[in-house]
Amino acid sequence: MVSSHISQLTVHDATLRDGQHAVQHQLDVPQLRAYALAASAAGVPVVEVGHGNGLGASSRQIGYARLDDVTMLETVREVLTGTSRMGVFMVPGWGTGADIRQAAACGADVVRIAAHCTEANVLRRHLGITRELGLEAQAVLLMSHMTGAARLAEECRRAAEYGAQAVGIMDSAGHYLPADVTERIGAIVAAVDVPVIFHGHNNLSMAVANSIAAVEAGARVIDACARGFGAGAGNTSLEVLVAVLHRSGHEIGIDLPALLRAADVAHDRLIAGPPVIDSVSLASGLAGVFSGFKPRVLAAAGAAGVDPLEVFAELGRRQVVAGQEDLIDEVVRGLKVAS
Amino acid sequence: MVSSHISQLTVHDATLRDGQHAVQHQLDVPQLRAYALAASAAGVPVVEVGHGNGLGASSRQIGYARLDDVTMLETVREVLTGTSRMGVFMVPGWGTGADIRQAAACGADVVRIAAHCTEANVLRRHLGITRELGLEAQAVLLMSHMTGAARLAEECRRAAEYGAQAVGIMDSAGHYLPADVTERIGAIVAAVDVPVIFHGHNNLSMAVANSIAAVEAGARVIDACARGFGAGAGNTSLEVLVAVLHRSGHEIGIDLPALLRAADVAHDRLIAGPPVIDSVSLASGLAGVFSGFKPRVLAAAGAAGVDPLEVFAELGRRQVVAGQEDLIDEVVRGLKVAS
Repeated sequence: MVSSHISQLTVHDATLRDGQHAVQHQLDVPQLRAYALAASAAGVPVVEVGHGNGLGASSRQIGYARLDDVTMLETVREVLTGTSRMGVFMVPGWGTGADIRQAAACGADVVRIAAHCTEANVLRRHLGITRELGLEAQAVLLMSHMTGAARLAEECRRAAEYGAQAVGIMDSAGHYLPADVTERIGAIVAAVDVPVIFHGHNNLSMAVANSIAAVEAGARVIDACARGFGAGAGNTSLEVLVAVLHRSGHEIGIDLPALLRAADVAHDRLIAGPPVIDSVSLASGLAGVFSGFKPRVLAAAGAAGVDPLEVFAELGRRQVVAGQEDLIDEVVRGLKVAS
Repeated sequence: MVSSHISQLTVHDATLRDGQHAVQHQLDVPQLRAYALAASAAGVPVVEVGHGNGLGASSRQIGYARLDDVTMLETVREVLTGTSRMGVFMVPGWGTGADIRQAAACGADVVRIAAHCTEANVLRRHLGITRELGLEAQAVLLMSHMTGAARLAEECRRAAEYGAQAVGIMDSAGHYLPADVTERIGAIVAAVDVPVIFHGHNNLSMAVANSIAAVEAGARVIDACARGFGAGAGNTSLEVLVAVLHRSGHEIGIDLPALLRAADVAHDRLIAGPPVIDSVSLASGLAGVFSGFKPRVLAAAGAAGVDPLEVFAELGRRQVVAGQEDLIDEVVRGLKVAS
């Protein structure tokens, strides 16, 4: 299976996983079923599903999903047909080896293991478990704008050594411009022999343009969500990406009219309000802060009467990484005292 | 005034003119005043105002604006301060020389005259009137994807001969990818000695990326609207454009935090729902059909039970231009008979 992905382009549909952030992980069985059915009918190669933060992440701290992992996976598995495979996402710590085994038992085909951009070493164990189970193992680096091209290439090379069959980067903060992507993806492509992954966010209105830059630099797995469904400014719009790839001469085996119908299903049934690049999302992207911080920043800044744009700027200066949400309150307190 | 624009970058804010399409030209005096005040406070160089289709366009066929041209212009003129100038837009036929004289009497500084991309010859008279009045005369070519770089350069060269002090192109259908913009703007920049204008739409999620491509190819006047306010998928987002230009090292004399406040004013007071790249907007951009056709296509297709995406595809094949709205019904009837 894997070798066929090296030269061709795979669009990885994260609507039912990363999109969950926009609805606090509350998608229900009929929603999962309706979208997965429509995406599969369009020939989407990978349908990723789960809690927004991945396997095992449903919890008091991060937020409970409406459904448990098994229910989500079984629901999607049941309706996928043709060439569509099922994907899952996992951050070691939130998820464990047991979660991967459970996902395998539910019929997952592709397992994404994620780590902060400089910490590929934590991926080894779970990439190994995934390979032992005979599933496709992929590795992605989060908040990848926080380090440079050479380091990302080195971390990706290490992940490939650990057995990852595709490796790549997420622009978790929506901070990249196309030239940033070209440089980083180019360096990674030169360093590894496996397909390279790019996952964009739209804070600077560059998600699709960055994804095209990634493809042109040699990336072969591009993540996207129907209507850009996702936290804050949203992800790369799946149907726009596919339309632009079609126009640019890339053949990716997805039926565009059917994909537009799937996007309409997402719009009508999954999405409360479409993603918008509002001032807060824009400030967060500029500052290079994880998009997922937005609800907590707004709540804490609002309660303290502090400008949320200043909170993002300060979090950016402190180089806060995903998982360090506690610093939000500290920054808000500091700005309140200063004002 | 004009020579200072040749080397520096001018962001031309079309929120209160092109944005009007999203609300059927129904902005009222308090809305115009609130946004113009906020934009001016941010140092926006040009605030364009009027009916979405420009001076003199308020009519039964195109749709009546809430306010007459004089009221709109006087309202904005009253609140502009500092370096902010007032702009108007006019398509000969909808507007006349008398409308330009009236706009001048109301304090307009910049007059944009627009024509279909191959018809710069119709601009001569009104560019001349604008120059006689001592105002800055600009010329823009609509639906510019319908012809090639050489022809656009030739039409722009002609407009400059007629007296235009800035010339350029509008991506009225939101059809361009960055490489298309690079080629066309590059050809125009090489052909004229005046600043070159680019005006994008977001149907393929490329409005900001295309605008940056235009700047890199030498364009010096870039149009944008707060939150992308505009018909269908919307225009280039003004605040995202400015943020990205800042990050790319372009100094444009706009205060970003103040601009984000202006965008919030637009969001809270002007915009019913933010622009969304839905399936119809995407299909229209792909087909290269004027964004303004969307409401009529949806209405006609809905009434006849025909797929609006097929209507756009057929309109694109027929190379329909703005103003040929009558063909919508013909295409819908044809598709109904065929089905």
